[in-house]
Amino acid sequence: MPKKIMESREELRTAMIDAAERIITEQGVEALTARRLAADLNIAVGTTYNVFRQMDDLISEVNARTIAKITSIITGVDKSARKSDELLMAYADAYIGFVTANENTWAALFVGEVDPESESHKRNLAQTLHLFSYIEEALSAVSPETDQSEIQASARALWAAVHGMLSLVAHGRHSILGLGNIRDAINVLITNHVAGMKAKR
Amino acid sequence: MPKKIMESREELRTAMIDAAERIITEQGVEALTARRLAADLNIAVGTTYNVFRQMDDLISEVNARTIAKITSIITGVDKSARKSDELLMAYADAYIGFVTANENTWAALFVGEVDPESESHKRNLAQTLHLFSYIEEALSAVSPETDQSEIQASARALWAAVHGMLSLVAHGRHSILGLGNIRDAINVLITNHVAGMKAKR
Repeated sequence: MPKKIMESREELRTAMIDAAERIITEQGVEALTARRLAADLNIAVGTTYNVFRQMDDLISEVNARTIAKITSIITGVDKSARKSDELLMAYADAYIGFVTANENTWAALFVGEVDPESESHKRNLAQTLHLFSYIEEALSAVSPETDQSEIQASARALWAAVHGMLSLVAHGRHSILGLGNIRDAINVLITNHVAGMKAKR
Repeated sequence: MPKKIMESREELRTAMIDAAERIITEQGVEALTARRLAADLNIAVGTTYNVFRQMDDLISEVNARTIAKITSIITGVDKSARKSDELLMAYADAYIGFVTANENTWAALFVGEVDPESESHKRNLAQTLHLFSYIEEALSAVSPETDQSEIQASARALWAAVHGMLSLVAHGRHSILGLGNIRDAINVLITNHVAGMKAKR
């Protein structure tokens, strides 16, 4: 990026998030340091700390963009005329596609210290819970009289399962599952879960 | 460790694995370096490379011990007179207990480059697949006529789900699940999965 005078604090803030997102995308979150960021933006290292007191706050802003992208992909899934397990698999496929194409930004969602009181964390958490509501809606359709708390637990357990499998792939531990295709394992989990909820209602 | 002359290569090898296990247990796998290991054992840094060409091979040996401990905990679960979902939850509880008490050695199972051709990796993989066979046995009891390949996929998907939830806890991302107790989410997953397999048979 050419050297330029940032016209406002807001402009500098956006430039820092842009640069952080680029570094994370290209080299992973470990590559993101105040020194690297300052060099990329032609600013003093100290200046970065004037805007974000700690790198984790900056990562949180990049994560907000990542969550927004995932939201846009999930909300883009066609919900019409599908059985619940098919719709859930369509969500899983959309998520797998995003993770595969954006492994570094996805991995950044799960690193760094989170300050539970920070605005950025609260916003990211609210967005994530909104995403879960799509899974919950599909599960409620399977079993409308099931307790909402159990629907929530089901939705989060299924997502965590997908997360677990994808993180094994990301860490090259995929072979532990002894499966050629992670999608098949996810499908087995979803179809059995939905069949179980139907059977119990 | 007091300075001593290692009497044989085998003795040095064992001392290195002992020291690596201690470092990983106390400070996590990131703390394990050839320099740190050499200092702990009062040997030259170069000597460490004579025994393990790379740190990942040493981590693999520590992982073999960790897998042996998990195996001993899983094989110690009382299998008598339980329904399949109860037995699976007992396995999950045993695993959760191990992970909670041994977070650093557990996390080391999923880091480092794995050489798929190495003896240590092959041995660890075989041991892990043996562990999965306990889950598969419990699932086969639910639905004896189900294809073995589907039983395997079910077992690995359920384990990956538990792995996913525990890794969220380990990374402080537990709050995403919005659940006080990770065990409840695991229980929901297991009971629905088993009910689904029963319904489909």
